Amino acid sequence: MKAIHVGLLGLGTVGSGVVKIIEDHQDKLMHQVGCPVQVKKVLVKNIEKDRQVHISKEMLTTNVEDVINNPDIDVVIEVMGGVEETRQHLVDALKAKKHVVTANKDLMAVYGTELLSIATENGCDLFYEASVAGGIPILRSLVDGLASDRITKMMGIVNGTTNFILTKMTKLGSAYDEVLKEAQDLGYAESDPTSDVEGLDAARKMAILARLGFSMHVDLEDVSVKGISSVTDDDISYSKRLGYTMKLIGIAQRENGKIEVAVEPTLLPETHPLAAVNDEFNAVYVYGEAVGETMFYGPGAGSLPTATAVVSDLVGVMKNMRLGVNGRSAVAPQFEKQLKSPEHIYAQHFLRISAKDQVGAFSNITSLFSERGVSFEKILQLPIKNSNLAEIVIVTHKAAQSDFEEILQRLNDLPVVEEVKSTYRVEGNGSI
Amino acid sequence: MKAIHVGLLGLGTVGSGVVKIIEDHQDKLMHQVGCPVQVKKVLVKNIEKDRQVHISKEMLTTNVEDVINNPDIDVVIEVMGGVEETRQHLVDALKAKKHVVTANKDLMAVYGTELLSIATENGCDLFYEASVAGGIPILRSLVDGLASDRITKMMGIVNGTTNFILTKMTKLGSAYDEVLKEAQDLGYAESDPTSDVEGLDAARKMAILARLGFSMHVDLEDVSVKGISSVTDDDISYSKRLGYTMKLIGIAQRENGKIEVAVEPTLLPETHPLAAVNDEFNAVYVYGEAVGETMFYGPGAGSLPTATAVVSDLVGVMKNMRLGVNGRSAVAPQFEKQLKSPEHIYAQHFLRISAKDQVGAFSNITSLFSERGVSFEKILQLPIKNSNLAEIVIVTHKAAQSDFEEILQRLNDLPVVEEVKSTYRVEGNGSI
Repeated sequence: MKAIHVGLLGLGTVGSGVVKIIEDHQDKLMHQVGCPVQVKKVLVKNIEKDRQVHISKEMLTTNVEDVINNPDIDVVIEVMGGVEETRQHLVDALKAKKHVVTANKDLMAVYGTELLSIATENGCDLFYEASVAGGIPILRSLVDGLASDRITKMMGIVNGTTNFILTKMTKLGSAYDEVLKEAQDLGYAESDPTSDVEGLDAARKMAILARLGFSMHVDLEDVSVKGISSVTDDDISYSKRLGYTMKLIGIAQRENGKIEVAVEPTLLPETHPLAAVNDEFNAVYVYGEAVGETMFYGPGAGSLPTATAVVSDLVGVMKNMRLGVNGRSAVAPQFEKQLKSPEHIYAQHFLRISAKDQVGAFSNITSLFSERGVSFEKILQLPIKNSNLAEIVIVTHKAAQSDFEEILQRLNDLPVVEEVKSTYRVEGNGSI
Repeated sequence: MKAIHVGLLGLGTVGSGVVKIIEDHQDKLMHQVGCPVQVKKVLVKNIEKDRQVHISKEMLTTNVEDVINNPDIDVVIEVMGGVEETRQHLVDALKAKKHVVTANKDLMAVYGTELLSIATENGCDLFYEASVAGGIPILRSLVDGLASDRITKMMGIVNGTTNFILTKMTKLGSAYDEVLKEAQDLGYAESDPTSDVEGLDAARKMAILARLGFSMHVDLEDVSVKGISSVTDDDISYSKRLGYTMKLIGIAQRENGKIEVAVEPTLLPETHPLAAVNDEFNAVYVYGEAVGETMFYGPGAGSLPTATAVVSDLVGVMKNMRLGVNGRSAVAPQFEKQLKSPEHIYAQHFLRISAKDQVGAFSNITSLFSERGVSFEKILQLPIKNSNLAEIVIVTHKAAQSDFEEILQRLNDLPVVEEVKSTYRVEGNGSI
């Protein structure tokens, strides 16, 4: 029986995992698909380098053409990373009628729409489950499992590094810098952690999720992004007092055909299922009109989990090949993209204000809110030791973002307000 | 464009949900599949009965042949429940070349293997996502999302009624009978709750999960079952003291090609993700060799969640129809079924013993364990008020079931032991 031949672009941690799974699980793959699968060629930078997997030197190449234009190869698996050059390789591969599986969120966030339409034009599959939340089969669940439902909201912990950092800060009460250093020492954070801690990595994944879940052309620029680098241990300790857990949450929601996509440090009630997702784990919470609440939890990264997602996609491609139905999986967006304006983005907000501890200060502050029709869910006031200041912590009921921003500006101008120390979005409180 | 026509067997809560979703989400379904879908005929017991959904009387029938032998109908959706008669209807439908979607766990647990092979013989799809854990797309995730991985263990909270009861007992410290009555009043438990509280419902779902996850012919009789009706509030309060949460857990595990499937009240560390699955929610925790730990969480029952799963299956059938690839989804089991014998089933155990509060009692008891090579992870001893008895609570390290059962028998014969009050399995403690 003819084997299906696979070419790899890249042989780093994920690539090595893919080679290992294809070898170790050959029996299961063969049983599922009905024919053997073989890795044929692997693009690497350096042929002589020692590898984590056993692979013969003849299979390695430094010439990308040996993979993407190799007539023996049916499926190209892209695990090299990068955006511009990699995009060109995948365009070339698709035009050469190779099916493509990629784990590359950066690429899919920016060029996903283009690549999917090139794949369809060429009758090829392009699968990218591994690009969001590593080992969690979330894209497949959105496309197939919840196929009949209308998804109204997704909330995701989709970056393991920041979840590790916030978990440690919460559990140990440690400061951000300290935990970041530990995460770097443990290899959970890069030496330049910007992309993780500033929320960019999460934003890419949310763009991909929103595009799929809402069936719209969501661009990376449509995602509003705020990272965790300014989160203090005080913020976390005050939010704990009020029963909240701080997480970096990607939010995508749709209302009356208009969407909002944001990534920001967000407070969740301690009892919310996402609040219990700790350390480097990822999870995506999905609200569907009919199904209600579901959550998908698992490892967001790592060699073998990510490789599992890649090889599961490969199985999908191979099944389609055997059935002769490739290239029909990408569905064009159903809706025109419409973004919510700040008047239509409603959320609860947490604020920490240091104010002068004097008569009337509190009512000065609260009247600013009531003038804009914003009411409070929780209020905590405590004196700040050795000062004539008080710490006021407020959680508002739902308010329009435009109103909230105006209130913030006016608060800063108020003589009794020393400083608005921090504000965070609050989610998951009762009704969505 | 030709519409795809659907016939329903049953129009109860789930059936009404299916009709509603097909109506409400017509646009999305049309967009995904490329043709309209219409409900054509519905088998009911009583045509005159008032319905929760708007449906014309002409579409209702009391004659099953109008659905399963109707030449206009492409897909039969079975949401009537029942086993023997329903099995015959579905066999007839498949032989009449109708694709089948069913939400019937009782049926699939007993006749799943037979029905799937009849479906394959007739070139028909038979999908049953809704039969396990209602709105959670778990079967699909096992088959597709984790396709490339080797699943070694699944732990599921797959019965909402018992999870509701145990959650209330845990949170409020209430007694079993009291909470059961409340659950019945709220409609979470049937007036005859046996199938739920004795674990039979969960056992059916675990048989289906194990069959799919381990690719073996698992029969319902292979599942060892113990319900929650003998769980006391004292058991729960002692397990809480030791840091555990009590859940009715379905466990399916594979080791060296041999499997164990069990449903029993089980103690999980409070920090385990399953321990946070509360009220009537369901969740399935899956360990794969490569992916590690993943969890799928959502509503386990209810009209619309279950109907979502049914209609998502329907979308799968319709996509296959459009591609002309029906009837190839059922994969014959890869492995011969091999069950573990009690010497090979290893688990930790929790025991509550009331013993005479006298010199040597404790060492009498513990030496029974050490003779069989079973050591302790946690021990708690407390006097029982107004008696000369002590309460001894033990959590063992992992022990073979055969050894544990022998110890239990000998404990009962020991003069210093007044009574072994309860024993529970302990899971989720570190390594799987």
